[in-house]
Amino acid sequence: MTVSPFDHPLLSGLLGDEEAARHFSAEADIDAMLAFERALAEAEAELGVIPRDAGAAIAKALGSFRPDTAKLRAGVTTDGVVVPELVRQIKTAVCTPQDAYVHFGATSQDVIDTSLVLRLRQVVDHIGLLLGENVVRLTGLGLEFESRELMAMTRMQPAIPITARDRIVSWRAPLERHQERLKELSGRLLVLQFGGAAGTLEKLGDKAAAVRAALAAKLGLADAPQWHSQRDALAEFASWLSLVTGSLGKFGQDVALMAQMGSEIKLSGGGGSSAMPHKQNPVKAEALVALARFNAVQLSGMHQALLHEQERSGAAWTLEWLILPQMVVATAAALRLAAELSAQIESLGH
Amino acid sequence: MTVSPFDHPLLSGLLGDEEAARHFSAEADIDAMLAFERALAEAEAELGVIPRDAGAAIAKALGSFRPDTAKLRAGVTTDGVVVPELVRQIKTAVCTPQDAYVHFGATSQDVIDTSLVLRLRQVVDHIGLLLGENVVRLTGLGLEFESRELMAMTRMQPAIPITARDRIVSWRAPLERHQERLKELSGRLLVLQFGGAAGTLEKLGDKAAAVRAALAAKLGLADAPQWHSQRDALAEFASWLSLVTGSLGKFGQDVALMAQMGSEIKLSGGGGSSAMPHKQNPVKAEALVALARFNAVQLSGMHQALLHEQERSGAAWTLEWLILPQMVVATAAALRLAAELSAQIESLGH
Amino acid sequence: MTVSPFDHPLLSGLLGDEEAARHFSAEADIDAMLAFERALAEAEAELGVIPRDAGAAIAKALGSFRPDTAKLRAGVTTDGVVVPELVRQIKTAVCTPQDAYVHFGATSQDVIDTSLVLRLRQVVDHIGLLLGENVVRLTGLGLEFESRELMAMTRMQPAIPITARDRIVSWRAPLERHQERLKELSGRLLVLQFGGAAGTLEKLGDKAAAVRAALAAKLGLADAPQWHSQRDALAEFASWLSLVTGSLGKFGQDVALMAQMGSEIKLSGGGGSSAMPHKQNPVKAEALVALARFNAVQLSGMHQALLHEQERSGAAWTLEWLILPQMVVATAAALRLAAELSAQIESLGH
Amino acid sequence: MTVSPFDHPLLSGLLGDEEAARHFSAEADIDAMLAFERALAEAEAELGVIPRDAGAAIAKALGSFRPDTAKLRAGVTTDGVVVPELVRQIKTAVCTPQDAYVHFGATSQDVIDTSLVLRLRQVVDHIGLLLGENVVRLTGLGLEFESRELMAMTRMQPAIPITARDRIVSWRAPLERHQERLKELSGRLLVLQFGGAAGTLEKLGDKAAAVRAALAAKLGLADAPQWHSQRDALAEFASWLSLVTGSLGKFGQDVALMAQMGSEIKLSGGGGSSAMPHKQNPVKAEALVALARFNAVQLSGMHQALLHEQERSGAAWTLEWLILPQMVVATAAALRLAAELSAQIESLGH
Repeated sequence: MTVSPFDHPLLSGLLGDEEAARHFSAEADIDAMLAFERALAEAEAELGVIPRDAGAAIAKALGSFRPDTAKLRAGVTTDGVVVPELVRQIKTAVCTPQDAYVHFGATSQDVIDTSLVLRLRQVVDHIGLLLGENVVRLTGLGLEFESRELMAMTRMQPAIPITARDRIVSWRAPLERHQERLKELSGRLLVLQFGGAAGTLEKLGDKAAAVRAALAAKLGLADAPQWHSQRDALAEFASWLSLVTGSLGKFGQDVALMAQMGSEIKLSGGGGSSAMPHKQNPVKAEALVALARFNAVQLSGMHQALLHEQERSGAAWTLEWLILPQMVVATAAALRLAAELSAQIESLGH
Repeated sequence: MTVSPFDHPLLSGLLGDEEAARHFSAEADIDAMLAFERALAEAEAELGVIPRDAGAAIAKALGSFRPDTAKLRAGVTTDGVVVPELVRQIKTAVCTPQDAYVHFGATSQDVIDTSLVLRLRQVVDHIGLLLGENVVRLTGLGLEFESRELMAMTRMQPAIPITARDRIVSWRAPLERHQERLKELSGRLLVLQFGGAAGTLEKLGDKAAAVRAALAAKLGLADAPQWHSQRDALAEFASWLSLVTGSLGKFGQDVALMAQMGSEIKLSGGGGSSAMPHKQNPVKAEALVALARFNAVQLSGMHQALLHEQERSGAAWTLEWLILPQMVVATAAALRLAAELSAQIESLGH
Repeated sequence: MTVSPFDHPLLSGLLGDEEAARHFSAEADIDAMLAFERALAEAEAELGVIPRDAGAAIAKALGSFRPDTAKLRAGVTTDGVVVPELVRQIKTAVCTPQDAYVHFGATSQDVIDTSLVLRLRQVVDHIGLLLGENVVRLTGLGLEFESRELMAMTRMQPAIPITARDRIVSWRAPLERHQERLKELSGRLLVLQFGGAAGTLEKLGDKAAAVRAALAAKLGLADAPQWHSQRDALAEFASWLSLVTGSLGKFGQDVALMAQMGSEIKLSGGGGSSAMPHKQNPVKAEALVALARFNAVQLSGMHQALLHEQERSGAAWTLEWLILPQMVVATAAALRLAAELSAQIESLGH
Repeated sequence: MTVSPFDHPLLSGLLGDEEAARHFSAEADIDAMLAFERALAEAEAELGVIPRDAGAAIAKALGSFRPDTAKLRAGVTTDGVVVPELVRQIKTAVCTPQDAYVHFGATSQDVIDTSLVLRLRQVVDHIGLLLGENVVRLTGLGLEFESRELMAMTRMQPAIPITARDRIVSWRAPLERHQERLKELSGRLLVLQFGGAAGTLEKLGDKAAAVRAALAAKLGLADAPQWHSQRDALAEFASWLSLVTGSLGKFGQDVALMAQMGSEIKLSGGGGSSAMPHKQNPVKAEALVALARFNAVQLSGMHQALLHEQERSGAAWTLEWLILPQMVVATAAALRLAAELSAQIESLGH
């Protein structure tokens, strides 16, 4: 099934990004969830919350654990989340009496949110690299066509001549600010979620803070109080994703408009038409516009999802799942396409 | 890759709908595109636009045609649409000199938009049935719990007693209006798209109207002038989808609120928690809220996509692809979940 | 205070529409609310629900009633709606003992929703006329420049020549479908809201249906069961408004793109620049694009507002108030601007 | 005319904020534009770009300048912006030959964008104070009801007991992060816009950088290269506004849900009903939800507006005007309402 072009065997060639999408596969999600359960058991064993041999048994069982995905799917249908069934399967793999210590003190949301953050950490690296590549390419274009003349267009009308460099700067400067923003928000985003049934880690007693810190350290995430009903860091990240695609959409739209005008830009490798073999369509530029408008739409949903009811909102949380992965992949795809489009620019200005 | 929960092997168990999703697989799309090319060749042969034996050769070749999907994917990457490469492959299958008559007078958009409409026709049937089922179930609930008392809640506060029937009517009546709306819009939606390179069917001369009518008849669609840059019927359909999920979201939210209050509703088969085995979460009700808010967000994008530039907008068209299939599946899933939720209501009111 | 450009003394010259905005003034709202209260008293008196002389006293008092708006504002602050304080003031104007029959059996939402519908009836007339005018103007343009040649642009690239008429049809045909849609939805939209405290008209006993029918007849609205928590007709109307502005936005964008290309269109009276006196900016065309994107954004909110909780949602209802009036005025303004833009087209095609 | 509730004489009592709205009046906008023109003339005179006496004459004339607003309105209708007509009026006030130096080297966008930023500086102060007040109030509530017991609700179902403090922290902690974010983004937001006709300050020759720096200093803004087609700082600020209202919406929703449950919260001064005098509606809590959803919707439009075409987009720029002021006022109103709602909480937990 391939309802989304990001998952589609044909359309993802243009609109997808394999590296980003990989982090949202069921496999990657389960791997990260298992990493959480393992690190939790280890941290709790080290701190004496669960027996040492329970920790070892759980770690060992998880090393070779393979879930029954048909049952996981059925579990989601009933429970709305995969974790209850996954924990059941892990417990079976661990055997009595150590199975009682699997997932000890944790709740579904701890596992799912932390799994997301673990994968977003890799996404942030990937997107950060792509962003850097775009800055480099646009810097290169600026140097290459620096003093060429372009007609500035204001309100869709010719204004006065500017240089190619002037317009290229307007594409590059926002990307540099996005790099700065990404640094700022990463500290708020890449944070462990661990609160137990209702956020109070009530089963861990006075060792709660120590377990949480150890768990965060093992997973390579920042330690902080649970944020299960505080989704601002995710909405902030989504805003950032849409800022990035918005800036790239402006680049794409400018390229398409220049291509329409005819002589100011020369692109290699435009797209063909089934009816008109002479055409060279600015396909990547158009895709940048589409992805920018897509993310601008989706962003609204991530902000609607800020209204988590009480300690945990099934509805708002599910809404995040429907939106955030696609925003990430749209952004990675846009960055990839923008870098390719920069490379297609053979000439800019006169 | 499973970026969207609608495509996800685990999450689609709750949030997806297999029958609706099937129509958006690459296979279903290609099948519909091949049906278009075959019907086109037959119509043109019958009307003397292409040689009779060309029509027969094309129909025969298409009968056993299997596309090279790796090349199709590469084609999308370059051309932004699958059709130029698909037509190339069909021509190879047809052989010279009949290959010159493949796709004659048509353009990529004719194939893609008509393929979409052919599949939306099946979607409309599927969703129409699900909608009818929900009306029946809510009618049944109304009869079952008719005179039971509920406390009306206005502005989140107890108002005065009403009957269970009163509230059930507020869930059912909008669905009946949606049935009426679906009939009205279907006539505008299920229409052939056929215009050639720029909408004028310039290669068909004075036989253009006759070929278009014959093609529409063969495909079981209404005949009308090309609408390649007029996307109002698609945006109208998207609005309808969001009306449906919005009404179901109100149902879900009401059920979740009643479940929270405790005694007014009794549901069978709620979802379990990994931390609190005693809980019965109203998972389907929450999913209805999530899907309603999701579609309300997406709808904005389908209306942004009304701004097709000139005769064909790559950007706005691509934006539709990113959104409409998901809105369809969200709606089918919501209808399925709502019917299941109705069946879970064991008691309503006092 | 003029936070919205639709209310702004300067910007509304471009972006507003006085006739549409008039229906959303506090005065127009209060007038419609008083019409509701008067018709209600008359209907109830005629049907013997309240004493005849109470009906007469209320009608008489309302004839000369002038509200204390400072107190109304304070009432909104406390109650979230204007009606409790308004009814208090009307009761004072009516005097004992007839004051007991003011607003009898009704609730705030009956008054506010029916006031809205009464004003939307006038809005529908106004917008319908503007829509008709646009169809006429575009038909005229089609006749005037019928056989002139334009270069079709597909995916922002020159395709093959078409006629000016071909492109004009793509602007006009959707508007004609919007006329058809408006007829269909008006029957669902222009409906009395009357349900009392929780929708059951519990104070009217076996005369409820008769009072409701008489009230509807007096107000010139269709009679139907209360729809206080069923907002689909409003969301459908909002969808229609956005369809209209979307189609006009496509027209505006095409004009701006042609103006950018230079020779294909000649517009009279473009906008000036403070820095470049030679420029003629396609201001109205750009405004059409802005208004289309604005309404496409707002539409999402009207669909979010479908999720009315239980019998009455303060939150979702307030969200409608924040959005629907602006969508109406944006649509009226776009229709006005589009008609003016059509009149500015001095030449189209070669 | 009062299309927006933020401008409405009655509804703004609940939904508006006078202090924030004041900055978006026509008067405040014109005052800021005149401040720009005055500072520009002074900076240019000091740096020898225009004659000293021209600078003095312009400053003097602006001191007593009163615009003809009817002509300004007509100017907007034609030009799409107020500046060409405003500059015309200022020139008349300055007299020949000094009038030639009014607005020297600047363009409409410099004036309008810088006027916006000057007012956003005051908005940032105002909203920052309100945000601080909310943090203080919630801290106070936390201390007051610290150890009271609340039933945690997860997925709309009772989970396990927590303390009132736990839930209050979930309301307060995001606000503290918003304070941190506001500091980070302010440096990017409160920046002079000055670029001339097409961004190159071509009329200022080698004094361009010095004039820009002097102008920024006079206006109390940061100096930076023009950003006329780079709207990321505005979209980032809009994202922040929606983060704030989203967090407050969660607070409002939680309060409304607790009020619905009955005994966990006691509020003073709830809203009355016209049909049911016994009711105490959580009006401010509901308004917080409405404003949060409103801003989440609007945010999409600010991100659509990132796609400024080329050197200046009339369409995308106009879209900002339609949206950003309302987001600001919605945020200020939500902060005011949240502070009031905190003060209404007489009891929380058991």
